[in-house]
Amino acid sequence: MSDFLALHRTGDPLLLPNAWDLASAAALVQAGFAAIGTTSLGVAAAHGLPDGTGRARAQTVALTRRLRGLRCPVTVDIEAGFSEDPAEVAALAVELAQLGAVGINIEDGRPQGTLADPGHQAELIAAVKQSAPGLFVNARVDTYWSGMDAVPAGTVARAARYLAAGADGIFVPGPDRDDHIRELVAAIAAPVNILFLPHKHTLARLTELGVRRISTGSLLFRVALRAAVDAAVAIRDNRDITVDPPSYTEVERLTGSVRIEA
Amino acid sequence: MSDFLALHRTGDPLLLPNAWDLASAAALVQAGFAAIGTTSLGVAAAHGLPDGTGRARAQTVALTRRLRGLRCPVTVDIEAGFSEDPAEVAALAVELAQLGAVGINIEDGRPQGTLADPGHQAELIAAVKQSAPGLFVNARVDTYWSGMDAVPAGTVARAARYLAAGADGIFVPGPDRDDHIRELVAAIAAPVNILFLPHKHTLARLTELGVRRISTGSLLFRVALRAAVDAAVAIRDNRDITVDPPSYTEVERLTGSVRIEA
Repeated sequence: MSDFLALHRTGDPLLLPNAWDLASAAALVQAGFAAIGTTSLGVAAAHGLPDGTGRARAQTVALTRRLRGLRCPVTVDIEAGFSEDPAEVAALAVELAQLGAVGINIEDGRPQGTLADPGHQAELIAAVKQSAPGLFVNARVDTYWSGMDAVPAGTVARAARYLAAGADGIFVPGPDRDDHIRELVAAIAAPVNILFLPHKHTLARLTELGVRRISTGSLLFRVALRAAVDAAVAIRDNRDITVDPPSYTEVERLTGSVRIEA
Repeated sequence: MSDFLALHRTGDPLLLPNAWDLASAAALVQAGFAAIGTTSLGVAAAHGLPDGTGRARAQTVALTRRLRGLRCPVTVDIEAGFSEDPAEVAALAVELAQLGAVGINIEDGRPQGTLADPGHQAELIAAVKQSAPGLFVNARVDTYWSGMDAVPAGTVARAARYLAAGADGIFVPGPDRDDHIRELVAAIAAPVNILFLPHKHTLARLTELGVRRISTGSLLFRVALRAAVDAAVAIRDNRDITVDPPSYTEVERLTGSVRIEA
């Protein structure tokens, strides 16, 4: 974990792109990204499952297994842990660590935009850290995301409880105001991860604000989906497609280079 | 099958986009496409498997199961059938038909760019049609694709054998010359499917040439991959991303609308 933790630098943060399958992960590594996250929306939607409802456990584990071939750290979005039982969440964490994951994201948001009781969430985190101490636990605080307590104070209070339970980093998706982000960074005694929001953030500005990890969440998956549909519609409309894709052979070479023969 | 066959019209061909997961398929249906194919490269690469080597049978069946929720015909790329045994290929065809597929693509290309013996390939096709007569069998002739016999004559001879074995359509990926395509359409007594090649074809021109089905193969998957990487690199370079993606909620709604609760 220490190598992965070291990538969370003030002034030179970890830009972590989130993949949803082996091909997207391999392509991002090829483009020079130092580590890969997964996106629970992407994994769930690719399989026709709803996100954030604890349904994609098997698919998440299967993806982690496939990503073992990447020559970089992989951190896995496990939604809220796919269970409310600390022992079950801890067992999942152990399984992912054994598959080579260096970290997980675990969120305190719950279906229908509610938030977990922070004490219960801290129990889940503590159980994970007890069973898989080497895993970088990025505790996601969904105060902004859910719109339920979208101010620094409520977020910092939850973050403090999760850090006391052993979390290694705090992920706050949603804030776009500089003053809020600066306050979160100042008040949270661990690397702060912010979700990149197009047209609201730039990497340079988030870096200046002291953010130590910037992730893309479901953005790349959603971009991929739109680009694919746009290309199909362009063909239908007798227009040129605007993206210059890798060749068939390049894709085969890409995925072959990271293939696990299991 | 008759409804699907009816979409293969001279002068108003079926433009068939190829998807690789539930989300891409659902997004293409939402964009108004009348039917969906799958891409074996996309399915294989997403799972870290090599394409065209018979390794992605389970993933192909699983995807077909997920696509049941689409309110349109689905035709499945089964590479070379994932087996050289006619009974095994026929069993797969029955399984896919039971999962709601209206058609399959089966190719006579084999690993390392070789071509199957056409008599053996005809046996596979005959076995499929005997067991699953309602399935639209699009027999792919890889003469152009493999570069082994890239002239109309060799292609037409193979096509005739596959049609005699019961194939319903002929797919010839690779030809870009108008005279070749016109000759193939004239000499093949069934709907001809051409793979859309960017910057070489237009839908309008292929329509004029009498092509009755135009598919995108792995193109949309490759476009999606490039767009995702381009967006991540744009963020890294402090540039705006150039694709305007669907929102998180739009993706959830999209996949929820076609979800099979199984």
